Amino acid sequence: MLSSVTLREVADEAGVHYSTASRALNPATRSIVNAKTAKKVLAAAERLGYRPHPLARGLRTNRTLTIGMAVPDLLNPVFPQLYAGAEASLRDQGYWLLVGAGDDCGTPKSASRILIDQHVDGLIVANAHIHSTLPQNPTNQTAPTVLVNRTTDTIDAPSVACDDHAGIGLVVRHLVELGHTDIAHIAGPQFISNGVIRRQAFVAWMHSSGLETPPELIVETDGFHIDEGRRACERLLDSGARFTAIVGANDLMALGCYDVLAERGIRVPHDVSVTGFDDMAYIDRVHPAMTTVSVPFYEMGALAGEVMLTLLTSEDSGAGTLPTSTRLRPHLEVRDSTAPPAVS
Amino acid sequence: MLSSVTLREVADEAGVHYSTASRALNPATRSIVNAKTAKKVLAAAERLGYRPHPLARGLRTNRTLTIGMAVPDLLNPVFPQLYAGAEASLRDQGYWLLVGAGDDCGTPKSASRILIDQHVDGLIVANAHIHSTLPQNPTNQTAPTVLVNRTTDTIDAPSVACDDHAGIGLVVRHLVELGHTDIAHIAGPQFISNGVIRRQAFVAWMHSSGLETPPELIVETDGFHIDEGRRACERLLDSGARFTAIVGANDLMALGCYDVLAERGIRVPHDVSVTGFDDMAYIDRVHPAMTTVSVPFYEMGALAGEVMLTLLTSEDSGAGTLPTSTRLRPHLEVRDSTAPPAVS
Repeated sequence: MLSSVTLREVADEAGVHYSTASRALNPATRSIVNAKTAKKVLAAAERLGYRPHPLARGLRTNRTLTIGMAVPDLLNPVFPQLYAGAEASLRDQGYWLLVGAGDDCGTPKSASRILIDQHVDGLIVANAHIHSTLPQNPTNQTAPTVLVNRTTDTIDAPSVACDDHAGIGLVVRHLVELGHTDIAHIAGPQFISNGVIRRQAFVAWMHSSGLETPPELIVETDGFHIDEGRRACERLLDSGARFTAIVGANDLMALGCYDVLAERGIRVPHDVSVTGFDDMAYIDRVHPAMTTVSVPFYEMGALAGEVMLTLLTSEDSGAGTLPTSTRLRPHLEVRDSTAPPAVS
Repeated sequence: MLSSVTLREVADEAGVHYSTASRALNPATRSIVNAKTAKKVLAAAERLGYRPHPLARGLRTNRTLTIGMAVPDLLNPVFPQLYAGAEASLRDQGYWLLVGAGDDCGTPKSASRILIDQHVDGLIVANAHIHSTLPQNPTNQTAPTVLVNRTTDTIDAPSVACDDHAGIGLVVRHLVELGHTDIAHIAGPQFISNGVIRRQAFVAWMHSSGLETPPELIVETDGFHIDEGRRACERLLDSGARFTAIVGANDLMALGCYDVLAERGIRVPHDVSVTGFDDMAYIDRVHPAMTTVSVPFYEMGALAGEVMLTLLTSEDSGAGTLPTSTRLRPHLEVRDSTAPPAVS
């Protein structure tokens, strides 16, 4: 049984920051803490009856205490949030997190490959494509791996992602309740799980609301970027198809729609409602503030870090673990980019 | 003399991406390119008379071909931009860039320390404090280091930063031309160069415009964050001092001012003008769109990458280099958060 005394309580008792307490309690990192401080923390832990996380015992000695995280694109503000969550939960146990960026999972020199070559103890993969494979480390073994944000058909590793199906359901129901029936979808790339699942969910929720999804109202893109959103929105408008709302597969693509609609004198939400997906930083401050599916990226990153710690512990103990797939529940943030359809 | 044929022209001639061409031309990275492709690129280079960057010859064999970048905070969107610029210029020569985040430069386990422990070939430091020192690598040598974004009094390394003095001048002149005389400054932390230089520049430009800077109109903060901007703006308003404009030391702190002013029913720009500094991503889309000093972060990162390549080349050749300090010129983006002062 693990002790019910938390690391934070030990830190408070010793009067130090919890990260200092964490390092002092971990034999592998104790030497980097001032000796007097370490003594104070250990005394506090003994007084309170603190029993450390299993990971703090039995650490392999060849560990670098560094985890790598491969992200597709740091310029999309959701990935820094994901990083911050993972970094916090790993730091708490004396691990450090390095990031490599590039949406090139599976290429000979992908971000994952680079991180493995740097001898990280584990890999958190946030840039997987559906058919991605994992690089192996120099001894031809696969490092402990956690998939986050995106899932794959090919990698047998635990994953932490958003419940995209539920998220699209929130958005479609919101638009239907406002009275929309002609709803378009700007879909993400179909080689990325989030693109596929959100597209499938859009069709499924529309049909279960008794609504049609004519092919000209679903436009696929090559990337979750503003430019791709622009291109798709232009195609949608140029097709001449009638619609009163657009469900964007993420916030950046919905921002691309904002730009094209503004250029053509089409008002959001008066003429067309627009929704995003992610609730990325600052999207509540754009004009109009965007209605979007709020994904708990920080918590998702933190949980991915926790799962990584569990993998490392089971590697230490030699016990196997069954890969788990966790999907976090998003919620809808209704803001100013959605309204009832204009009477025409 | 270097050849005038560019890598991009070789790539176009061979019909491959420039990063592929780069790796094919670099003996140290050639093996990761498909052999047939490498042959095609080398043939194209010969046809055009391309002569590679000196770095591609004479590479030390113990190189990891990886550069580390230490940033304070990935949640501030300027750092992902800085990263993207550096990553692009390094990738072009077959190098990869890893990031570690944390505003803890100088602590025993700082992001810089972690990166050095991972045997990066060089370190780009974007999180320096004024009195920061650099970690040494396992052989007690300092890795080639480039300071970017922030400078220090203590580290003798080349630096690439923004001309903050000129930037604050642009903002003060703009406000003075609009008719403001009572101008407040929310200053950054005084242990970071950008905080110090922008504060000094504010005082200097106000005085050279014949205006006063009473102490109650300059509020110092502990970090370049929204929360710190909020706290400082509250202090400013609670002091009862009269002012019609606020010069924020960065965009995030100016956003904190937006929030406090809105809560108190004070309109931007009608009652108070607010300016930022950085021109971070999405700040042109907030409401009101922010007038700010636009810092070329991508270019700054790209130049830091170039300087790093020069350092590595000179290390190879054994030639010393004199540290250079480069400051990039910012420009003013006038948007909707500034207006003439209300007649009172």
